[in-house]
Parts: sequence; C-alpha cells; structure tokens
Amino acid sequence: MTSKKASPFRLLLLGYGHVARALLPLLAARDAWLARELGVRPLISGVGSRSQGFFIFPAGLDVGSLVQESGPLMSLQPPGTRVETAEAFLYAGKSVGADVLIELTTLNPLDGQPALDHIRMALQTRMHVITANKGPIAYGLVELQKLAHAHDAQFRFESAVLDGLPLMNLSEYTLPAVDIQAFRALLNTTSSLVLSMIEEGQSLDEALARAQQLGIAEADPWHDLDGWDAVMKTTILANTLLEGHLLPHMVERAGIRDLSPDEVRAAARSGTPIRLVSQARRDRDDVIASVHPQRIQPDDILRVGTGMTGIISLETGAMGPITLVEHEPTVQQTAYGVFSDLVNIVRRRQGS
Amino acid sequence: MTSKKASPFRLLLLGYGHVARALLPLLAARDAWLARELGVRPLISGVGSRSQGFFIFPAGLDVGSLVQESGPLMSLQPPGTRVETAEAFLYAGKSVGADVLIELTTLNPLDGQPALDHIRMALQTRMHVITANKGPIAYGLVELQKLAHAHDAQFRFESAVLDGLPLMNLSEYTLPAVDIQAFRALLNTTSSLVLSMIEEGQSLDEALARAQQLGIAEADPWHDLDGWDAVMKTTILANTLLEGHLLPHMVERAGIRDLSPDEVRAAARSGTPIRLVSQARRDRDDVIASVHPQRIQPDDILRVGTGMTGIISLETGAMGPITLVEHEPTVQQTAYGVFSDLVNIVRRRQGS
Repeated sequence: MTSKKASPFRLLLLGYGHVARALLPLLAARDAWLARELGVRPLISGVGSRSQGFFIFPAGLDVGSLVQESGPLMSLQPPGTRVETAEAFLYAGKSVGADVLIELTTLNPLDGQPALDHIRMALQTRMHVITANKGPIAYGLVELQKLAHAHDAQFRFESAVLDGLPLMNLSEYTLPAVDIQAFRALLNTTSSLVLSMIEEGQSLDEALARAQQLGIAEADPWHDLDGWDAVMKTTILANTLLEGHLLPHMVERAGIRDLSPDEVRAAARSGTPIRLVSQARRDRDDVIASVHPQRIQPDDILRVGTGMTGIISLETGAMGPITLVEHEPTVQQTAYGVFSDLVNIVRRRQGS
Repeated sequence: MTSKKASPFRLLLLGYGHVARALLPLLAARDAWLARELGVRPLISGVGSRSQGFFIFPAGLDVGSLVQESGPLMSLQPPGTRVETAEAFLYAGKSVGADVLIELTTLNPLDGQPALDHIRMALQTRMHVITANKGPIAYGLVELQKLAHAHDAQFRFESAVLDGLPLMNLSEYTLPAVDIQAFRALLNTTSSLVLSMIEEGQSLDEALARAQQLGIAEADPWHDLDGWDAVMKTTILANTLLEGHLLPHMVERAGIRDLSPDEVRAAARSGTPIRLVSQARRDRDDVIASVHPQRIQPDDILRVGTGMTGIISLETGAMGPITLVEHEPTVQQTAYGVFSDLVNIVRRRQGS
C-alpha cells in the first residue's frame, strides 16, 4: 500500500446525514489515489451531529473503519471522546490537529445558523472549511472569504449549488476571462418534479407525497415549493459568479404554491411548461436577482432542464451564452463535490 | 493609470490572423484590470506570420499601438527588427525577454507542423506557450506537457476545442474528483450548419458556399466535412479528459461527404437529424474514439446542439452525465480562451 508513506490529513465531520455517509466510502475507495497523487491519507479527527452527539478521536479514526460502522456514533469502537456542544467539538478537533472542517449540517434558510458560527470558529482557528450547506454561504460568503484569507485558510463549497457541476471552480479559474453578466437557471429539482407530476394529472398533495417517497423533497417541502431553496442557491451564484453582495431577502421571490393545477396543465399543453426559474443580472455595481415561476418557451435552452435536471445558462460578456446541465443529481454528487473541494484544498496548500 | 506600477509581461505572437487580431483589442481593453488584479502589463516582444514576415521589438511594443495599426506588419512605426524565419523569431524573442509564445498559426491536420516544432523550441527555452492550434496538441500533447514540466514552463490550450467552454480548466481542476469515463459531442459547427442547410433544401455546394460566406467554413471545407477537424478535437479531448494516448489516425473517422441529400432530409423529417458525432470511451487502460455521422434521437441531449451550437456530454463515474453547451462560437471566443490561458499562466507563476 502506497498509503503507508502518505502524511495524515485530518478531517472533522460536523453533520452525519446522507452526504457524510456518501462521502466516507468515496474517501475510502480513493485511499490509494489520494496517497499516490497528493501524498495524503485522510483520518477522521471527529464526527458529530446534534442528534447523535459529538465525538473526538485524538489519534484519528481510519476512514474505512467508520465506513463499516452502521450503528450510532456512541457505539463506535474504540470509542471517541464525547464533548457536549458543537463549539467544544470544534476546539477539541483543532487541538488534536484537524486540518479541515467538513460542515454538512442541514439548511436553516432564515439566517444560516448555527452553521455560520461553526464555520467562523473553524476559520478563526485556521482550519480549512468545506461546506455543502447553503445557509452560511448565502448569508456570510464575503465575510467568510475574508476570514479565511486573514487566517490563511481555505473556504470551499462546490457542492452547495448544482452539486454535479463544478461552477465554483469555473468561477474561480475562468471568471475574469469570461466576464459573466447574467444567468438563468433551474436550481430546484423538487419543484420541477412536482410540476411535471401535476402536468401528468396528479394533485399537488399526491405529487408531494411521491417526491418525498423518492427522497427528493425535504422533510419540509415548502422550502422547495415556496422558492427558499432556489433563493439560497441564487444568492450564492449571484455573489460568486456575478460578484454581487446580495442577502437572501434581497432576492425577489415567488414560489409555485399559488399556481392552480389547471394553469400548470394548460401551460404544459400549449408547449410552454411552467418552471421555477432563478435569474440574476449585473446592474451597474449591483446585482438584481429573482426566483419565480415562468413559462418556458420551446426555444429556451432551459427547456432541456424541465425534467429532473439542473441547468444554468450563463450570459458572458464576450463569449455569448454558455450552458451547463446536470442530470438527475443525487447525494452521491453532493459527496463528490465535497471530495473535489478536499482535493483542491490539498493541492492549493501544496502550491501545485 | 494603475498600469504604471505593473511589471511588463512580454508576449511573442506567432500567427497574425483573425484570432490574433481579436486578442489584441481584448488585451488592450483589460489593461487596467491586468495591472490591478495581476500586477502585469502586456507588451509585444514580437509579431510574426509566414505571409507578412517576422518582426522583433526589443523594447516591447504597446498593445494599444498594435491595435490601432491596420496596415501590414512591415509598416509599423517604430519599425521592428525583421528576422527571416520562425526559428530565428523565437530565439530573438527569447533574447529580448519574451515570457510567453502565443502560437496562433493555422491547422495542419497531417502532422501538426511546423507549429509543433515552434512550441517545442519555445518550451525548451523556458518560454510559456499558449496555442489555439489543434495540430500540435493532437500530435504532441504528452511530449509537450513533459517538455513544459522539465523546463518549468506552462503549456496551455483552452481555446483549441470548444473555445467558449473552459474544458481544459475543468479537466485540470476537477478531473480527479469527477472521474470522466466517456464523452459524446458535436465539435464541428461547419458540418452541423451544412447539414441543416441541406435539410432546408439547399444542395451541398450551395450550403458550402453559404458557410464560407458566413466565415464559418475554412478555406478548405473538407477539413470540416470529412471529419478531420472533429478528429483533431476528439483526440485532444480523449487525451485530456480521458487521459488517453491517442494520435489522430487512431480515431475512427467517417465524414459527411458521402451522405446523399435525400438521406439527410429524410432523417430530419423523421425527427432524427444526422450530425457528425465525436465520441470516446475509456476501455481498460486505453481509450477508443470515433467521429462519424449519427442520427440524433429526440431524447438525446446532443439534440440541443443541432443548430450552430457546440455541445459535449460527459459521462462521469459517480456523478452521472454533465453536459456543456456553447452557442454560436465566434473568433471572439477563441481570443477569450487565449486570454484566459494568459491569466492562468500569470496566476500560476505567482503561485496564487
């Protein structure tokens, strides 16, 4: 095993839901690759979640052993050192040498808390941070980027929006040359799915139940249907791709709650199905953004995205439109986005 | 002007056609941005072309003054020092401090020469190289990358394939995480345009004449219609995105020359228009690639690209398909790709 020679790269996992559980086997499977290409071997310094408690592993836990563990965190062998709060978890993690906080707690669309505070604390202790949580980025992007810079740490969030598409990498490496002026996008798959089921004759309640059954809709589907999820993503994209300084409440918002099934079906029959469109545009030194239902015309490139597809079409200053499409995103893709952030952190740290 | 404090970044332009003439105003317009963001000020150390001769400017020529110059290179004031050959031009350029060779000569699909030799020479003298010329990359990618690495120089070619899409950046920054297994693409706009005109009732000759009038088709349109242009691009993508080691003659090739207009029209009428499809797939340690006409089914994502659109759909190991679309590419986009390479060279040189 080449991994014997690799130096440890210590991870602190905060949030232990679907994404974390998809990330671990992915890391384990790429053990040899990480050792060979980057010279690192990931070790878990701690895992914590509000429901299961917060556990620190001072010597570092092998990723593989955590993959095999299907029981609760409490019953891990050898047991971790339990701490009481997320704050204590972060400080204890730092004290045992954690390099990166991987923040995977659930979205709070009101103010991004407590994830925002977790990320602040981690950056202040010079830990790098990866998050897939839209809240803290939508509310604190500029502040967190400054904080990261001041503490010589990296802050990455590739999987927060359109997980499957490397939009943040695009923004980082090609934005200056491309000069993005505006975008239009379908960012919320649940609302697309629900609308297409209504078009096929189901009621809103039936469609919602089915989406939850499929594991697509959140526990509270109104985050999706009222446009809050899309607003978070639109804010993040407006602030990264268009260099805006928006907060979520500055994004004009209308959801699909008040659309009547008849209206939805009539629009689809006439060849212009309704979808929840996110859009943003530079306007002098400002950015104007909105999320609202729109009829998608047959020649609209967003038409490709009316199934279970995420799509974004960028209008660029001198290059015309560029469109990126991801098909039927799953939690695997979110985990992959986190993995790619990890790779980029190691690479940049090494200056390669 | 902030540019006063910026340090000179010296460019050697080899090839003085449409792309070079689109690049210069773009550089001039971004003078302040380059000084502010990167601390550099581009200066022209030399410009040369086979038809107009090779000229060196030892003190460096201001980009703006070259933009305003519409006459032949010979009549530039103050005049450059004329040298006889491209080789002499490269060495003289190096001796006056050129940092980057921007190679924009025309495609030679047979062996990529003489561009391949120009790039070798430049890298050996530790100049960075940017090219938009597919030939040298299709024939010499691995060798040129090794050469660049050995001489601590950078070799970049973002605009060689689907100029408007940052595919090479994607490959460089996200390939390891994304694990691309295969791609399908429409890479040659001329053949798409000619086929769509035949579908509308024109003859092949009429369609060709129109494409040339529009400035889309090359002087020799058979590079496009026989699939050579697509083969070059497919080779490059197979070797970068899929880490293959193909040479152009290893790509199975069939063009659209032998399709009858009736066949083309019948296919379009039945809802499955014919387009020249590039595809490649990993196969154990190898990559298999082809370029040939295919009927595009209604539910095929490539369907989006049947107009004047370039499109590539990537099949990734764990993330499902990702599709990128560019709309009606022009020479502006090629120039932008070169500019983005330049930005990345400066950034990487600075280790940022």
